[in-house]
Amino acid sequence: MSLPIGFTEHPADLLTAGPGFSLAEQPTNAAPGFSGKKADGADTLAARAPVIAQLQEQLFAESRFGGKKSVLLILQAMDTAGKGGIVGHVVGAVDPQGVKLTTFKAPTDEEKAHDFLWRVRPAAPTPGMFGVFDRSHYEDVLIHRVHGWADAGELERRYEAINEFEAELVAAGTTIVKVMLNVSPEEQLQRLAARLEDPTKYWKYSPTDLDERKFWPEYMEAYQRVFDKTSTGHAPWYVVPADKKWYARMAVQEILIKALGGLNLQWPAGNYDLAKERARLKDAVI
Amino acid sequence: MSLPIGFTEHPADLLTAGPGFSLAEQPTNAAPGFSGKKADGADTLAARAPVIAQLQEQLFAESRFGGKKSVLLILQAMDTAGKGGIVGHVVGAVDPQGVKLTTFKAPTDEEKAHDFLWRVRPAAPTPGMFGVFDRSHYEDVLIHRVHGWADAGELERRYEAINEFEAELVAAGTTIVKVMLNVSPEEQLQRLAARLEDPTKYWKYSPTDLDERKFWPEYMEAYQRVFDKTSTGHAPWYVVPADKKWYARMAVQEILIKALGGLNLQWPAGNYDLAKERARLKDAVI
Repeated sequence: MSLPIGFTEHPADLLTAGPGFSLAEQPTNAAPGFSGKKADGADTLAARAPVIAQLQEQLFAESRFGGKKSVLLILQAMDTAGKGGIVGHVVGAVDPQGVKLTTFKAPTDEEKAHDFLWRVRPAAPTPGMFGVFDRSHYEDVLIHRVHGWADAGELERRYEAINEFEAELVAAGTTIVKVMLNVSPEEQLQRLAARLEDPTKYWKYSPTDLDERKFWPEYMEAYQRVFDKTSTGHAPWYVVPADKKWYARMAVQEILIKALGGLNLQWPAGNYDLAKERARLKDAVI
Repeated sequence: MSLPIGFTEHPADLLTAGPGFSLAEQPTNAAPGFSGKKADGADTLAARAPVIAQLQEQLFAESRFGGKKSVLLILQAMDTAGKGGIVGHVVGAVDPQGVKLTTFKAPTDEEKAHDFLWRVRPAAPTPGMFGVFDRSHYEDVLIHRVHGWADAGELERRYEAINEFEAELVAAGTTIVKVMLNVSPEEQLQRLAARLEDPTKYWKYSPTDLDERKFWPEYMEAYQRVFDKTSTGHAPWYVVPADKKWYARMAVQEILIKALGGLNLQWPAGNYDLAKERARLKDAVI
């Protein structure tokens, strides 16, 4: 596959959390593999939007004729890192008909009464769909680890359960792309401050954002553990520098395009006799 | 509210199915209220996309602070009329986070075992959401009437049940916009033929499309009855000429913008002490 314009290396290759990966060593304010500037990034994002849209349409079309493939993008990040921007600007380029977005919030009492994967299973994409998890089952090994809501044994059980769950999805035809948007605490502070200076953004600010922020090092440890335990061959993690929003969007878009492109999607031929239907159409009257 | 560029009258005013409305008298290949051409229509659609996107964001933002408002777009039409294009090009301009799209297909056995509204109620938008029904409970008084799957008495019961259901939604805060895309049988034939000439569109064609087409007059009668019975003050029908796709998209966008604009949406102030939070941010360290 040739590289998209502006790229010297593919972000999917550069940003995978493979064996020995160290979160602490990753840059947040960089644009790995991209030689252009912010404006070039915006151009690339716009130019590649029809590509991801068409790939998704082919995925959807195949499913109408028995295709079992689907895609699941899992987004995790600290507050303000830009999950919403990925949803709006990358996922937003795809026909809404083919998107199944689930935003996972703090679990309800009913959800808490069940195993942590109970609410996640029904949210998995059906064939042809582009599923998106805005937060996910990873909260159960992130915030739960940070605040001690699950002990070490329970966390181990959850990592294993997650790997098994994701392996099941992959076996059923789902391509899983897991993305952690890696923002720096300094950049987060600026973004929170910006929300308090713009009346159209006041609603996005919550005083609890500053409370969670105090646990930054603990969160980074929890993420490192997540990558160690769950960045598998069948469902790898990509850690995307997110201080430059324009880079993060473009990189996630390319990672998704590569994942979809690897599915060898085709336009279905249709399950009817083309010549016969053309003839029927010629004779069609009301 | 001033008219959007290119419009001499607002499509919401021109296209409402009010008392005495006659579907048979409506044009399909017209652009009511719009003085421009196709290219102007595309410009208007693009220019107004950020307007509908912002209104939806405000709707969503209000709901985070107790707002109960939501919007529901109901789309009905003959095959190929362009429902998918409305979803892709009008709804697609809105942040996916705020959209709840439901595509109603032929009911499952479980759904058939319940009242026809059983599967529809849970699909209604929650506060802050822009709900979209691609087909809807109206199939139960359209295809069911055309094929005689419901007798006259049952159809009457359903019209009443629909009006009560929609009145409940409105009372709970939902603004309902019902759109019938009005395509001509001649234009439909061309679009079906085009699908059989383009390998990227084969998958959209089904031989049953031609079978349903034979019932065109019966469908038009069923639609007329729907407008007579269910185009209410609280949930009016708009009948949008759809032979020109560019007009239909633009008109539906403007009808939605007017509906959202009428909700007097505001950016929420936030439920915290602004000065205090700004001070906390200044002292925030990791």
